[in-house]
Amino acid sequence: MHTVTQPVDAPPPAAPPAATRVAVAGATGYTGQELLRLLSRHPRVTLTAAMSSGQAGGAARRLPALARLWDGEIAPLSREALARDADVVFLALPDIAAAEIAPPLVAAGVRVIDLSGAFRLRDEAARARWYPETHQLPEGVAYGLTERERAAVASARLVANPGCYPTAAQLPLIPLIEKKLIDAGDIIIDAKSGVTGAGRDAKQGSLYSEVTEGIHAYGVASHRHAPEIEQGLAEAAGKPILVNFTPHLVPMSRGILATIYVKMAPGVTADQLRAALTERYRKEYFVRVLPNGSAPATRHVRGSNFVLMSVHADRVPNRAIIMAVEDNLVKGASGQAVQNMNVMAGFPEETALEQLPLFP
Amino acid sequence: MHTVTQPVDAPPPAAPPAATRVAVAGATGYTGQELLRLLSRHPRVTLTAAMSSGQAGGAARRLPALARLWDGEIAPLSREALARDADVVFLALPDIAAAEIAPPLVAAGVRVIDLSGAFRLRDEAARARWYPETHQLPEGVAYGLTERERAAVASARLVANPGCYPTAAQLPLIPLIEKKLIDAGDIIIDAKSGVTGAGRDAKQGSLYSEVTEGIHAYGVASHRHAPEIEQGLAEAAGKPILVNFTPHLVPMSRGILATIYVKMAPGVTADQLRAALTERYRKEYFVRVLPNGSAPATRHVRGSNFVLMSVHADRVPNRAIIMAVEDNLVKGASGQAVQNMNVMAGFPEETALEQLPLFP
Amino acid sequence: MHTVTQPVDAPPPAAPPAATRVAVAGATGYTGQELLRLLSRHPRVTLTAAMSSGQAGGAARRLPALARLWDGEIAPLSREALARDADVVFLALPDIAAAEIAPPLVAAGVRVIDLSGAFRLRDEAARARWYPETHQLPEGVAYGLTERERAAVASARLVANPGCYPTAAQLPLIPLIEKKLIDAGDIIIDAKSGVTGAGRDAKQGSLYSEVTEGIHAYGVASHRHAPEIEQGLAEAAGKPILVNFTPHLVPMSRGILATIYVKMAPGVTADQLRAALTERYRKEYFVRVLPNGSAPATRHVRGSNFVLMSVHADRVPNRAIIMAVEDNLVKGASGQAVQNMNVMAGFPEETALEQLPLFP
Amino acid sequence: MHTVTQPVDAPPPAAPPAATRVAVAGATGYTGQELLRLLSRHPRVTLTAAMSSGQAGGAARRLPALARLWDGEIAPLSREALARDADVVFLALPDIAAAEIAPPLVAAGVRVIDLSGAFRLRDEAARARWYPETHQLPEGVAYGLTERERAAVASARLVANPGCYPTAAQLPLIPLIEKKLIDAGDIIIDAKSGVTGAGRDAKQGSLYSEVTEGIHAYGVASHRHAPEIEQGLAEAAGKPILVNFTPHLVPMSRGILATIYVKMAPGVTADQLRAALTERYRKEYFVRVLPNGSAPATRHVRGSNFVLMSVHADRVPNRAIIMAVEDNLVKGASGQAVQNMNVMAGFPEETALEQLPLFP
Repeated sequence: MHTVTQPVDAPPPAAPPAATRVAVAGATGYTGQELLRLLSRHPRVTLTAAMSSGQAGGAARRLPALARLWDGEIAPLSREALARDADVVFLALPDIAAAEIAPPLVAAGVRVIDLSGAFRLRDEAARARWYPETHQLPEGVAYGLTERERAAVASARLVANPGCYPTAAQLPLIPLIEKKLIDAGDIIIDAKSGVTGAGRDAKQGSLYSEVTEGIHAYGVASHRHAPEIEQGLAEAAGKPILVNFTPHLVPMSRGILATIYVKMAPGVTADQLRAALTERYRKEYFVRVLPNGSAPATRHVRGSNFVLMSVHADRVPNRAIIMAVEDNLVKGASGQAVQNMNVMAGFPEETALEQLPLFP
Repeated sequence: MHTVTQPVDAPPPAAPPAATRVAVAGATGYTGQELLRLLSRHPRVTLTAAMSSGQAGGAARRLPALARLWDGEIAPLSREALARDADVVFLALPDIAAAEIAPPLVAAGVRVIDLSGAFRLRDEAARARWYPETHQLPEGVAYGLTERERAAVASARLVANPGCYPTAAQLPLIPLIEKKLIDAGDIIIDAKSGVTGAGRDAKQGSLYSEVTEGIHAYGVASHRHAPEIEQGLAEAAGKPILVNFTPHLVPMSRGILATIYVKMAPGVTADQLRAALTERYRKEYFVRVLPNGSAPATRHVRGSNFVLMSVHADRVPNRAIIMAVEDNLVKGASGQAVQNMNVMAGFPEETALEQLPLFP
Repeated sequence: MHTVTQPVDAPPPAAPPAATRVAVAGATGYTGQELLRLLSRHPRVTLTAAMSSGQAGGAARRLPALARLWDGEIAPLSREALARDADVVFLALPDIAAAEIAPPLVAAGVRVIDLSGAFRLRDEAARARWYPETHQLPEGVAYGLTERERAAVASARLVANPGCYPTAAQLPLIPLIEKKLIDAGDIIIDAKSGVTGAGRDAKQGSLYSEVTEGIHAYGVASHRHAPEIEQGLAEAAGKPILVNFTPHLVPMSRGILATIYVKMAPGVTADQLRAALTERYRKEYFVRVLPNGSAPATRHVRGSNFVLMSVHADRVPNRAIIMAVEDNLVKGASGQAVQNMNVMAGFPEETALEQLPLFP
Repeated sequence: MHTVTQPVDAPPPAAPPAATRVAVAGATGYTGQELLRLLSRHPRVTLTAAMSSGQAGGAARRLPALARLWDGEIAPLSREALARDADVVFLALPDIAAAEIAPPLVAAGVRVIDLSGAFRLRDEAARARWYPETHQLPEGVAYGLTERERAAVASARLVANPGCYPTAAQLPLIPLIEKKLIDAGDIIIDAKSGVTGAGRDAKQGSLYSEVTEGIHAYGVASHRHAPEIEQGLAEAAGKPILVNFTPHLVPMSRGILATIYVKMAPGVTADQLRAALTERYRKEYFVRVLPNGSAPATRHVRGSNFVLMSVHADRVPNRAIIMAVEDNLVKGASGQAVQNMNVMAGFPEETALEQLPLFP
C-alpha cells in the first residue's frame, strides 16, 4: 500500500480484493505506532481501523511520522467495530483491557494477536499472581514465539505475543536446554532494556532527565517476565526451572541486550553451544548467530525484526556467556506480532519485516 | 533484492536482466553505509561493488547492520573496476578524493553521483576558496536538489548532490524568494545538526563524551555550506545574496533542523508564505508543509527521505519564522542521491525511499 | 556544614549561632533539589525546612543524591512553619502556588526568593495575560538579575528570580543596548534549552523516548519568557521593544544556549561589542566573555553558576552574532537564587557557588 | 584556592606556606582534567604544574571548564620539572608512559600516585601478560583501594591507584569473602560503564554516533581488570580465584554499575550480606549501603566520590545479587587518587571531595 505516485493528493490504489483486514487497538502507544508503521507497508493487508481508548482524533497530530503513509483517523476503542471490520485484530493495550476485550473478539470469530501479558502464562497460579484480571485462557491460544511455535500460531485463534525480555532470553536458551548442553538449574540473565519498554504513559521515572546518562536495575527478583521465561525453559527441560533475571534500564529508546551466564554440561564447550545455535537457526530468516569473537550490539538491530546472538567461552572453566540482542519494539513486540500474523495468514513470514536496521 | 525466502543459505534470486549496475565508493562511512542500506532494497538495481580506500575486508564485520541483506565484500577503491562494472557510481568520499576520481569516471562514460562538495559551486572564485582541489566542473554537471533541478538531473553525467544544510535551507527559501514574498537580503538561518554530519573519522570533537548533553555552535560565519546556500538563493533572486548561517552541533546522530528568520515583503503574511509553500510542494512526495501551529521535529523524519516544513508568524510585525527538518543522512545525503539516481534512470522517484521514519 | 569527619554516624557539628535560617518550599522538583544541593554546602546558613506539597516523606528516597549531606525530612508545605522557622524562604513552586503564598510570607516579615514567574512582570497588562493569578506586586519586590539589580536585591523583601531564558538573553543584551551599540528593534533570540526547564512533572512530551536524539522548537512566538526579556531590554533602551524569541528543546538535562542575532549601530564592529561586554563584566565573578573566535558550549558550565558569552562578526555586513550559555538550573534558577540570598545577607556573593563545572 | 573575591583580575591569594606542592602529568585527558577540577578546590595543596605530552598550550582553550579557577598553562611533560617542583605527582598517563616515568620519580624522592594500570598487579606472570612494559614494582608500592589499604597508602612512595571496575567490584566483595559469607568460586560480575572509561583519544568506537542509543559488551573474558579484581579477592579468600567479569559500554559519559551474582554460604541470607556490608562501611564517609529494596543508580553519584551499594535476595534459593555504583572518573580514578593523597599527607580524607553528586 506504499506505492504512492504523484499526484500524492489522489486516493491510494485500492488493496487487492483478497486483502486481509487488520485493525490495531491501542494505536497511539509505542507498540501501537510501530504496528502501524509495519502494517502500512504490508502489501497483503488493509488497515481498516486504528483505535485508542484515550486519544482519538486526527492521525496527523498523533502519528506525524506516518504522514503520507497512513492518513486514517484514530477512532475510539470499539469492540463492535473491531469484530465487524477486521479479520485480525492486534491488541496493543494494557493487560487489564486486553484481558477483557480478547475473549469476546475471539468468540465473535476474529483472530486476535495480543501484545499484552494477559494470556501468556499457562499455569493458573502464576497467572493469578501476575495477571489476576485474566480469568482463563480461551481455547485456541498459542504462545507466539514464532520460531518455536510456528505450527501452533498458524492455527491459533488468539496469539499471546511474547514479552520483549522473554523473546531475547528464550531464543538462545531453549535449544541449548533441549539438547542438554547447559545446566538448566544455573542460569543468570542480566538484561538491559531501552526506555520504550516502559510504555508511553507519562511517568516520572521515564522522564528524559531521570533516565539519560545513567543506568540502574529495576524490578530486581520481582519482574513478571521471569515466570514467562521460566515457563518456556521448563517446557524445554521437562522440569520446573528457576532463573535469575535482573533487568536494567539503559538510556536508549529501543533495544534489549540479554547477557546470559550459563554452566555447561560436563565436557561441553562454548564452540559446541555456538554450533548448536547456528544449526538450530540456520533456516530462520530473523535469527543470526555471530561468529566466534563477535559480541552483538543493540544498534545493529534497531528498527528491524532481527535477533543477533553470540556465545563466548568464559574464563571460568565450564562456563559460557551467551548474548542476544533485539529491538524490543520489533522482534520484542510489534514485529513479532506481524510475523505471527504472516504465519496465521499464510504469507511469507518476512513480509513487511524486511525493514533494515537503522545505523547509526 | 530483499525478497529472501527460506532457506536463507540459498543464493538470492538473480536481478532481472535490465537492472542498473550501481557501485558505492566510500562504503564504510556513514553516508556510504546509508547508500548500501537504501540500495540493498532497490528492486531495479544490482549493487556490483562497494569500495573503501581505507577499510577493505569482509562486509560482515564492517556492516553488521546489513547482514542477510548484502553480503558482498568491501573491496579496495579502484577507478578501473568502477568504470568497468557500474553504470552509476555513488561517490561517498572526501572532497579531494572525489575531485580527483569523478572527472575520469565521467569521461569513461559512467554516470556519477557525488556526495562530496567538490562540484557544487559554480562560481570559480568561490570554488577556489572552498574546494581548491576542484579545478573545473566537467560538462554535464547538475546540482542535485531534486525537487528544483529534476530536469537537469535527468540528463546529467555528474550530479553534485547537495549538502545537508543547503537542502534544508533552500527547499523552503527558494520558492519564497522566487515569488518575492520575503526580503532576500535579510535571512538568518540558525541550523542544528546531528553528529553524523561530521563523518565517521575519529576526531576528539565527535567523541561521545564531548558531544552528549550539550550544545554549541561551530564554524560561525565560516562554514562552506553558506556559499552553497547563497548560490541557490541568488539564482532564485536574480542577484547576489549574503545570508547569516550559524550551524550548531546537537547530541543526536541524525537530523537537521533549520530555523529561519525572515522579513516579509510589505503586506505579506505568514499565512501567505505557508500557502505558497504548500502549493509549491503539493505534488512532491517527499516534502510536506505542516498546518499552522505545528513545528516540525527531526525525530519525525529519522531514517526517511522526507522534509517537513512550517511557517510561523513572528511576534515582531512583518517577520516570520520558517522551519524545515530532514534526516541529514537521507534527504541530506544518501537518500537524495538515490532519488537523483531514480530520476536519472527513469524509475519512480520514491523507489527504495519509502523507508518510514523510525519513531521513537 | 559539610565538614563531616568520622565517625559519620555522629551528629553534624552545630552551625554557628548567627547562621541565617533558610527553608525551601518545593524541595522535590529539579530547582528545589538544586537549591538543597547548593545550600547544603553553604557555611553561613542553616537549612531549617524542606517542604513539598506533593511528596512529603523520607529524604533518603526522594533525594538520594544528597545522602550524607542532608538527611532531613521533606515536610508537607506549611506557610506557618515557613514563617516561624526561616529568615529566608526559597519558593520553588508552580506560579499559582507562589502567587498565593509569597505575599503573606512577606507580610510576616520573611524575606522571600521566588523562583516562579509570578512576580517578574511589572506591567499589569502583561502580568494579567501571562500570570493572571498574581494580582499585584507586593512592596519591596526586586527583579533578581543579580549583576544588574544588586542594590535592589540587597534590600528587597521579595526577589523575583529571573527565568532561565531571560537570564541568558538579558546579560549580554542589556549592556549593548544601554551603550546604543546595537539596534534594539532588530533582535532575534534563537534559544536552545535542556529538558529540566520543563520541570519534573510527568508529561508525555518530556519522556526520554520523546526527547532523545531529536530537536524541535516549541512555544513559537508565544513563550512567556518573551515579555520578561522585553521588560529588561525596554528599560535599557528607554522605549518599548519587541524581540523574536524562539526556544528549542535539546536532548540534554541541563543547559541553555542563546544564539542572538543583532544589527549593529552604524560604524560599530563586533570587536567593539566584545570589548564593551568584557569591560562591563570585568569584575563580575560569574560572567566571562570569551576571546574572539571561541564559541561557548553548555557543557563547559554544567553544574556551575557561570555564564560564558561570545561575540562574532557575521558574514552579513553590520550584523553580529552573540552567544551566551548557562546551566538553566544554576545561574538560570537555583544558583542565581542563592547568589541573591548572598547579596541580601551580605555574604560574599560566590559563597556556596564555587561549584566547578562538571565536564564531561 | 577558590575563595576568589572581587576584583577577579587580582592575583589569587597565596597558598599558606606549608601547602603540599602537587603536579599532574597528563592533564588534558579525562582523568587529568578531573584531577585539576578536584585539586583546584583543595585548600591544602598548591598546584605547581599541569603537563601534557601531546597538547601543551594555553589552559584556557584546553580546560574551559576551569576558567577562573585554574589559569595556569599546560606545560610539556618533563620528568625533571616534576621532580623539582612537586612533592606529590599524579600520573594520568598511558600505562607505558607511567611504567617508564614513575620509578625515577620515586627514586628522586617524589611521592607518586599512578592512575594507570602499570603497577597494580603484584604477580609477575600476570604483570608480564597485561602490563609487559612494567619490569618490576618499585619498593614502597601500595595498592590504593583506600578503604582497604589505608595504612599502606599512608606510608607509600608509589600508590597504584585502582582501576575503575576493580574499585566497584572489590569494595562489596572483599568483606563478604573475608567473612566467608559467599562462595568465592562462583562470582559473576556483569559491569556497565560510561564512555569516559575509554579515555579521550579519538577512536571510532568512542564516537558519539557509535555509542549513543545502544549497548554492547566488549573485552568479553579478556579484560585486564579481571586479574586485578581476582588479585584482591584472592587475597581476601586466601586462595586463587577466577571470576566471570563482563564489561558493557553504556551511552553515558560517567558511571559504573557492577551487578554481581553470588552464591551464599549455606544458611546465609541476603539480609546477612547487607548487614555485614553496612557494618563494614559504617564509618567510611564515601561508602553507603542502601536499605533493603533500593537499587543504586549511577546518576546518584555522578561527579562525586561516593559508592552506593545494595544487596538483594535472588528468586533462586541461596543466591544473592549485589550492586555497586560509582563515578568512574571520581571514586574510580581521580577522586580516589585525591583521597589517597589526603591519606598520604595526613589531611582529612574527604578534603576537596565533598563535591556533591549532580542530579540530574
